[in-house]
Amino acid sequence: MAELNGNLLVAQSGGPTPVINASVAGVIQEAARHNCIKEVYGGLNGILGILNEELVDLGEERRSTIEQLKFAPGASLGTCRYKIHNISEEQIKAEPNPKKRAELERKRKQALLDMDRLFEVFRTHNIRYFFYIGGNDSQDTSHKIHLEAQKRGYEMRVIGVPKTIDNDLPFTDNCPGYGSVVKYNATTVMEIAMDVASMATDEGACCIIEVMGRSAGWIAAGTVLAKRGEPANPPHIILLPELLFEPEPFIAKVKETIDAYNYCIVVVGEGIKWRTKQTVNGVEKEVIEEIGADHTKKDAFGHVYLMGAAIKLKEIVEKALETKTRTVLLGYAQRAAAHCASLTDVKNAYACGTAAVKAAVAGKSGFMVTIVRRKQRGGAINWSTGLQPLEQVANVEHLVPRDWISPDGFMPNEKFIEYVRPLVQGEVKLPFEDGLPRYATLQKVRIAKQLPPRIVLKAD
Amino acid sequence: MAELNGNLLVAQSGGPTPVINASVAGVIQEAARHNCIKEVYGGLNGILGILNEELVDLGEERRSTIEQLKFAPGASLGTCRYKIHNISEEQIKAEPNPKKRAELERKRKQALLDMDRLFEVFRTHNIRYFFYIGGNDSQDTSHKIHLEAQKRGYEMRVIGVPKTIDNDLPFTDNCPGYGSVVKYNATTVMEIAMDVASMATDEGACCIIEVMGRSAGWIAAGTVLAKRGEPANPPHIILLPELLFEPEPFIAKVKETIDAYNYCIVVVGEGIKWRTKQTVNGVEKEVIEEIGADHTKKDAFGHVYLMGAAIKLKEIVEKALETKTRTVLLGYAQRAAAHCASLTDVKNAYACGTAAVKAAVAGKSGFMVTIVRRKQRGGAINWSTGLQPLEQVANVEHLVPRDWISPDGFMPNEKFIEYVRPLVQGEVKLPFEDGLPRYATLQKVRIAKQLPPRIVLKAD
Repeated sequence: MAELNGNLLVAQSGGPTPVINASVAGVIQEAARHNCIKEVYGGLNGILGILNEELVDLGEERRSTIEQLKFAPGASLGTCRYKIHNISEEQIKAEPNPKKRAELERKRKQALLDMDRLFEVFRTHNIRYFFYIGGNDSQDTSHKIHLEAQKRGYEMRVIGVPKTIDNDLPFTDNCPGYGSVVKYNATTVMEIAMDVASMATDEGACCIIEVMGRSAGWIAAGTVLAKRGEPANPPHIILLPELLFEPEPFIAKVKETIDAYNYCIVVVGEGIKWRTKQTVNGVEKEVIEEIGADHTKKDAFGHVYLMGAAIKLKEIVEKALETKTRTVLLGYAQRAAAHCASLTDVKNAYACGTAAVKAAVAGKSGFMVTIVRRKQRGGAINWSTGLQPLEQVANVEHLVPRDWISPDGFMPNEKFIEYVRPLVQGEVKLPFEDGLPRYATLQKVRIAKQLPPRIVLKAD
Repeated sequence: MAELNGNLLVAQSGGPTPVINASVAGVIQEAARHNCIKEVYGGLNGILGILNEELVDLGEERRSTIEQLKFAPGASLGTCRYKIHNISEEQIKAEPNPKKRAELERKRKQALLDMDRLFEVFRTHNIRYFFYIGGNDSQDTSHKIHLEAQKRGYEMRVIGVPKTIDNDLPFTDNCPGYGSVVKYNATTVMEIAMDVASMATDEGACCIIEVMGRSAGWIAAGTVLAKRGEPANPPHIILLPELLFEPEPFIAKVKETIDAYNYCIVVVGEGIKWRTKQTVNGVEKEVIEEIGADHTKKDAFGHVYLMGAAIKLKEIVEKALETKTRTVLLGYAQRAAAHCASLTDVKNAYACGTAAVKAAVAGKSGFMVTIVRRKQRGGAINWSTGLQPLEQVANVEHLVPRDWISPDGFMPNEKFIEYVRPLVQGEVKLPFEDGLPRYATLQKVRIAKQLPPRIVLKAD
């Protein structure tokens, strides 16, 4: 494989994780070891910023900043949820509604413009190494860019770097970000449970903690670690979006728990669904929908109002058992809690960044880095990285296997615990200043724009 | 002052804090230094457990457990919100409703029974030193017990130990628990803000974080530390319950912030109120009530439904600005987050425990320990303790002064920052086991009951 000389571009996409910047640090520090890589650029706000030619010179950042980047929350380069759509002419022809057809047509044209524009930016700044850090959608974007580079005969190596607290990417043992969220959430559930248990005499005996996870229950399941292997310990019930929620057995389990321990700690993945009846155009039919959907109300955008899973469960418990119930909604706190990150997770996220650069320099393109677990004699885990073709990764969603959950569906079992426990090992040591953690931020020295502004088609 | 020989009883009351057990550790470790104190007992679940003669022998606990207790969340001895009511015969006579009158009568009788019972327990177990760790209500209970002991000629020394995350006790510089909640909340707000800022291109640009504080805004105000002195830094708006909420200037401020920075972080104390119209018995009148009150709905207990301040603000922002808004409800997580406790707070909580024992051994009774701040040359703070008569403490609520808040009411000012900054200094070093903090729990070796069960009057 001939050496490919040129510049490197790294960008971040989708929701941040506590370790998303560790992967950026891995890319930057590894790039410095390869002479074929000339300049190291960052794209601001993912693909969206690259389309706008918003690039920064990461070579201008201090070494110490890059080192501390391993421990900073948020996405240091900014992120986006912008997608390059993949709409075929057949799809457009098949759409009967003229307004929707026009919108599909616009999106298809925008995607063609975007792809041209991306390669204009790549060519202008001599980008020959492109690393996109993200989840399912971002791996799909990387795949498209890789294919386009081949099609256009533009020599560039594209490697996807995995990232998602949802832990739902296939082929990789786990996704960078997940272990840290589990460490923080399990710690928080344990702490809340000690609080609730200590005032179980005459205060709200039930507490429901809502965590992230719209379709995959990995995050909720991870809080099983707060039990420390003791069945009587909290959390007492963990509800995963993989299993349909049924009120009766749930209420019975809450009651049984309060009868036994005077209190009950429930963890719920935000996306849990149930089978319910909905009247659509005057016809009642069964639907499966999120339990927090409240069809009597609309939000400010005209969508069905979502009160949230925890608040709905609180209503259900209070009504059925007349037990005062409290809710906690950790929201963004859980995916930003870098002060409680897992050192194993930080190291794996960093290794994914370095592995991406090594693979690209070695001539690979069109792959996602994966994390590989090898259990050593004595039980210690040896972590390494692998590569998986992006075409196999894109749009595959990895859920918690049914046989990793107890028969009644309320608790992950030993198989799951054996899987998740190694992911939370080790603590980060953060610098503190004036009582708060000191997190690194980038200077973001801009690269001069050389292109006219990007064309954006307006929706009608 | 003659030496008073006898046993010691310590108990905890009200909502736990991350450092409530540090005060217990202070009491136990200081007690060991005084020969006049024979046995050291703990009352389970505060006054309620003492009424039920549920005492444990703290002398049976390991030294290392007591040492680690300084860092454990929840109330290690359990807590309660049980009150000994103070209802006069005049109050009962003045009540026109016969049902309510009967209930007042029952409460008065129960209070008399309770007080007799308490002293029966004290006498039976030769309790001569009583320490009650709690907030406003608990200091009131300590005061009543002190007065009763004098009235009954039962020689016992009663000292209240301050504790409340709400920071609303008078006379003390700050309340143990407050500094730790501020440290965790300010850290969390800073982390969430880094996350939100990094995805401000196309995700929800507004994020509203609800923190505790029903009538006092100390907790919400404390998150100003996340700004690190930079006006442009988040949080951009802090809403305190001390000031009446007005939607128009709030919306204008959110808009101005998003226009300037692309995102807006709002922190809100759960108890903020506004002036609104309410139809009572067909007559519309102005009322001041919590902004989350939804009179179209009732909760399971027949009370007005409270959707919560953050969710109401989200509705207001989304409707007025069509800006996707996210909410975080930290709830119990904030008052249980011992992994992010302030070392200054731990030390002060511990010092309150030791000071209580020292004062009692020296012959004092009927006081609450206070924390005293002395600014040294160079700006360092020297912390010590003082004593305040309980009769002056009980039922006085200390709020954030108006001149510690900006003229527009949206941000605590330099005076507040100078006050709060010293409270979050220093980090705890927790032992970790298998990736999670290891918190001490007590064995709770029971003292044999010697009394018949307590009499509880039934409500009709």
